[in-house]
Amino acid sequence: MKNFNDENFLLQTATAERLYHEHAAGLPIIDYHCHLNPAYIADDHAFDNISKAWLEGDHYKWRAMRTNGVEERFCTGGETSDWEKFEKWAATVPYTMRNPLYQWTHLELKTAFGVTKLLGPATAREIYDACTEKLRSPGYSCRGLMMKYGVETVCTTDDPVDALEHHAKCKADGFAVKVLPTWRPDRAMAVEDPVAFRAYVERLSEVSGVSIGGYDDLLAALRARHDYFAAAGCKLSDHGIEEFYAEDYSAAEVAAIFNKVYGGAALTPAEVAKFKSAMLVEFGVMDWEKGWTQQFHYGAIRNNNTRMFRLLGADTGFDSIGEFNTAKALAKFLDRLAVQEKLTKTVLYNLNPCANEMIATMIGNFQDGSMPGKIQFGSGWWFLDQKDGMERQLNALSLLGLLSRFVGMLTDSRSFLSYPRHEYFRRTLCNVLGNDVEQGLLPASELPFIGKMVEDISCNNARNYFNF
Amino acid sequence: MKNFNDENFLLQTATAERLYHEHAAGLPIIDYHCHLNPAYIADDHAFDNISKAWLEGDHYKWRAMRTNGVEERFCTGGETSDWEKFEKWAATVPYTMRNPLYQWTHLELKTAFGVTKLLGPATAREIYDACTEKLRSPGYSCRGLMMKYGVETVCTTDDPVDALEHHAKCKADGFAVKVLPTWRPDRAMAVEDPVAFRAYVERLSEVSGVSIGGYDDLLAALRARHDYFAAAGCKLSDHGIEEFYAEDYSAAEVAAIFNKVYGGAALTPAEVAKFKSAMLVEFGVMDWEKGWTQQFHYGAIRNNNTRMFRLLGADTGFDSIGEFNTAKALAKFLDRLAVQEKLTKTVLYNLNPCANEMIATMIGNFQDGSMPGKIQFGSGWWFLDQKDGMERQLNALSLLGLLSRFVGMLTDSRSFLSYPRHEYFRRTLCNVLGNDVEQGLLPASELPFIGKMVEDISCNNARNYFNF
Amino acid sequence: MKNFNDENFLLQTATAERLYHEHAAGLPIIDYHCHLNPAYIADDHAFDNISKAWLEGDHYKWRAMRTNGVEERFCTGGETSDWEKFEKWAATVPYTMRNPLYQWTHLELKTAFGVTKLLGPATAREIYDACTEKLRSPGYSCRGLMMKYGVETVCTTDDPVDALEHHAKCKADGFAVKVLPTWRPDRAMAVEDPVAFRAYVERLSEVSGVSIGGYDDLLAALRARHDYFAAAGCKLSDHGIEEFYAEDYSAAEVAAIFNKVYGGAALTPAEVAKFKSAMLVEFGVMDWEKGWTQQFHYGAIRNNNTRMFRLLGADTGFDSIGEFNTAKALAKFLDRLAVQEKLTKTVLYNLNPCANEMIATMIGNFQDGSMPGKIQFGSGWWFLDQKDGMERQLNALSLLGLLSRFVGMLTDSRSFLSYPRHEYFRRTLCNVLGNDVEQGLLPASELPFIGKMVEDISCNNARNYFNF
Repeated sequence: MKNFNDENFLLQTATAERLYHEHAAGLPIIDYHCHLNPAYIADDHAFDNISKAWLEGDHYKWRAMRTNGVEERFCTGGETSDWEKFEKWAATVPYTMRNPLYQWTHLELKTAFGVTKLLGPATAREIYDACTEKLRSPGYSCRGLMMKYGVETVCTTDDPVDALEHHAKCKADGFAVKVLPTWRPDRAMAVEDPVAFRAYVERLSEVSGVSIGGYDDLLAALRARHDYFAAAGCKLSDHGIEEFYAEDYSAAEVAAIFNKVYGGAALTPAEVAKFKSAMLVEFGVMDWEKGWTQQFHYGAIRNNNTRMFRLLGADTGFDSIGEFNTAKALAKFLDRLAVQEKLTKTVLYNLNPCANEMIATMIGNFQDGSMPGKIQFGSGWWFLDQKDGMERQLNALSLLGLLSRFVGMLTDSRSFLSYPRHEYFRRTLCNVLGNDVEQGLLPASELPFIGKMVEDISCNNARNYFNF
Repeated sequence: MKNFNDENFLLQTATAERLYHEHAAGLPIIDYHCHLNPAYIADDHAFDNISKAWLEGDHYKWRAMRTNGVEERFCTGGETSDWEKFEKWAATVPYTMRNPLYQWTHLELKTAFGVTKLLGPATAREIYDACTEKLRSPGYSCRGLMMKYGVETVCTTDDPVDALEHHAKCKADGFAVKVLPTWRPDRAMAVEDPVAFRAYVERLSEVSGVSIGGYDDLLAALRARHDYFAAAGCKLSDHGIEEFYAEDYSAAEVAAIFNKVYGGAALTPAEVAKFKSAMLVEFGVMDWEKGWTQQFHYGAIRNNNTRMFRLLGADTGFDSIGEFNTAKALAKFLDRLAVQEKLTKTVLYNLNPCANEMIATMIGNFQDGSMPGKIQFGSGWWFLDQKDGMERQLNALSLLGLLSRFVGMLTDSRSFLSYPRHEYFRRTLCNVLGNDVEQGLLPASELPFIGKMVEDISCNNARNYFNF
Repeated sequence: MKNFNDENFLLQTATAERLYHEHAAGLPIIDYHCHLNPAYIADDHAFDNISKAWLEGDHYKWRAMRTNGVEERFCTGGETSDWEKFEKWAATVPYTMRNPLYQWTHLELKTAFGVTKLLGPATAREIYDACTEKLRSPGYSCRGLMMKYGVETVCTTDDPVDALEHHAKCKADGFAVKVLPTWRPDRAMAVEDPVAFRAYVERLSEVSGVSIGGYDDLLAALRARHDYFAAAGCKLSDHGIEEFYAEDYSAAEVAAIFNKVYGGAALTPAEVAKFKSAMLVEFGVMDWEKGWTQQFHYGAIRNNNTRMFRLLGADTGFDSIGEFNTAKALAKFLDRLAVQEKLTKTVLYNLNPCANEMIATMIGNFQDGSMPGKIQFGSGWWFLDQKDGMERQLNALSLLGLLSRFVGMLTDSRSFLSYPRHEYFRRTLCNVLGNDVEQGLLPASELPFIGKMVEDISCNNARNYFNF
């Protein structure tokens, strides 16, 4: 019987233990995609208590609490205290067994605070107090936690209109962790809402200094900001899309669509798709010109609960896995860039695991021999960022591509306590490889090479691939 | 080497054995969804022989026999004897190895009849005679079998026009098992066939005493029957649908569609979808008013073999798993009810396992904190009602929701010999949890809590959730 | 710790070892679907070196090399030497760990050449030389390799206009391996390109001696060639399609579509679909008349990289798994033939594993009891032709159909070194069954029957099913 959450957590074989402890455990973290608030890093924010650090903004936990019958005022509510919220979360934790929250919770308590007791009603107060005390002590600020976890580089997620002053401050301060921005221009193609789009374009004009009267001006303004991001050290873009858009379009059509929506008229779904199809290509070309990597997170359906959306807004735990058949559009989109020889490094993240095999074979169509693993199948995203989801991604990538060239893990998190997600991933990776060796599916004589693979996937591949 | 079908069948670890024998084995069965014939229970029907009890109506076995090269006259045919049919089934059984039929067959023979020999050509006659003799003895009638298996509650599946006299008789007789009806109004929205729909509406009018001249009358008549079902102890509805219908519609449109189809005219597919979209909302509101649970079984494609459908009719083994992308419509349907704050307890059953992750995340969008597990992901249905299907449902639910709040197993069966399906499920559940504990994925110190989870999922959750 | 690639490779239990060595290892190979060049067999071609035998035409290896950062000139390029290509492949091999290429590579080196060293930069030259020397010695020609691997029957893949002279020569030579053609009439319904279609029809007219002025003539010409293939020993057809086509059509419509495209006009997508719908039925009827088996390989999206397609043409490694929901069309197509009682033996191969459960249940709708396993779920195809893909196909078929009646493995390969794929499959099959027995999911007392199942699936079922 293995122990829960000890030094050999998730490692089922002696080979897995060896791979993890000798080749993965000590390596720095390169967190090339997250949603940390850069102001918190710039200001080296310290949290008042564990609820502020752990429950605020964490829609995974809120969903689990609602499912457990906990009222909304203990999840997102303003009228309950931080302790009351924590108490309700602690009471929910035992009911999350087999959910990744159960394992993450205890891995985070252990690695951040040295707490090895199980969280539950009986231990809630003690753990709340112990963690809160630590959070108020030196070394537990945002920067302190990043240092503690051995973070080398983080890439936040930023809008083209952002000033990136927090990234500048981190650099100016000589903070040892590289804090880089990521170009996420979703709002620049969110033409579903003419009013919000117009406001965004006006803001973009202001920030870029480019007066925007038409589609070409929009692109010029975006390009100015793209240059600005590059100057700030940006190496990646990211796009959150439902599906891949690869409609046929002409320059004239797109210009007319821009004029229509900018003029305040609602677009047809076909016009929206055409516009997004054009923008994805433009963004791809910009990234290619700068040698950046473009990332695509696709397949979520968001804000499914209208009543709660009206009460709480977006990103509050009412999103889910969609069902999209997007293979042909994805192929067409990538081909459009490849045929111009302007397809840059690309990472594809799917939310429905049914697409794993499609993605894992799609990337092979656009590997061009210019570098290892130019087109990547991204690690298990959001709901899939757990043992099963990671294993399925690792397996699909292994069977249909080259695991050895994988850029590995990222947290995608809003929390400074999510770094053990990298440990979780590395343990899972070592376990998968260890099982293969023990089963004779890989040769034991090659353990040195396999150890190197572990190091590469844990850290080296990402560092080299993204040019950090 | 483990023994086949012994007391530790399906239990791979000592922890799994302990969980099963200490926490699951002895609990009563709550079979909240099945297709048993209530007349058989009311009359305490006794079967003439094992073929009558076991082969009649069992399209799973017929499919296996046809695949094994057995002629139709030995499956559904009238001209062959019960013994001849059994002989052919027995000859097929060894060829079903790795199919759940092989395991169910031997589990049913063992638990109902104490037969532990393997069924095959060499044992067919002996087993036929032994089981038939038992079936003719006291304690092997329909009620006898239900008592033998420890059934506490069963919910049959009934049409709004049914008189429910058999349920009344069971109650009047003081039968120890609660036999409750389920509201299944599929025919009330089956507007694809104007003639059959008209006949159904006329029958509904007669039974309800509501004269039906328009759509509002249809709803009034259905509501009268809904009240009637409630008075008979009904706590659940059920809907068999291909996809979720969530088209936009107005009251006027739906009324016009009703008039058109009631007048005998064929509807367009768009009209059919609009009508069903409206009806699903109306049924959902009725269920919410009464505090019932609504169930949806979606995703089958039925009667795919026209020649056999003409010969044998529906439910004869010519149905299969469909491919439907219904996430957005499902979200829209549930949201329609949630936005009115009239979304009642809901169980979603999918037939294509590709939808597991979508469903398991969809339910999270509509958990409202009012009770634990208000929206449920139903257990593996039909073709998925086997070890692999159960495990995949358990895993998806665990990883993306709260397993601890799951209402568990149901037979969905037409046969009084299917109750060991609950045993099969409980063993699978205990095995999954036992493996997690042994692997250190769950803490062994929490076995008491985990044992309680097993009890809850086996029995308590369903009893509480459905208010039996 | 198990050894890599030894005599018990892939066999995790003693039962699996016993099943493989006693029931599978020695059996002949029936390779009922492949893409071998029949001219090579007729001429008993000998390869100059291992690169010619192993790398030429192997788009699996090219994809891996491109992903590993190898330039195109070392994959498909004309200007690099065979040794240089091999060197690059050898350097890529370690990076393919966990990809099936790693295991196939070493299984092929071992079984064909007795090479048990691992291929990599350090061993490349030695292995190149050793294999090349063997390839130039007696017993390593195409026919030699087929004899060495115990091949009993192969079915190549041929166009209706092919003369089949190579098959005739093999027979006339008294070559011990049956070399049979397969009817693959894809080009006869490739109406997307009017010019190529016209040229094809003209060639068909010439070869068949039927002058083609309309649709009925096209069918008559094809039927003449179908007869010709039958006379040459053909027992199977094969169709490579994206989706199943089952549109409604009339004879007049199809005749008009033929005239339009034959006249040089481009068809609408609806016309293309109608034409293919008609042709699939016609081909199905022809096959039924002759007692052939029809095969369908569906779901690939091909030539996704336009730039590389222009450079290298088709089948060069730029294809991938598509996403198609085709259940209803597939059911309708099979039903069209079944309702006329003209549905012949059929094998369905899917490329996206998401369709496994749909296919495994679809075949059950059309099993008619006339023979065991009349409708088959084909073994893991193309990207799925590896341990995980095979296991998923075996499991879906087992759980939803009858594994015992499965016709088993085929190479689908262009290479004479791919025969160990059968060994790989048989090991996987024995391992799956061995695990079930050891886990008590199947009774150990039935090992003789299970051993017979292994023999049947490895060889007997295919021999009987296809009437070789």
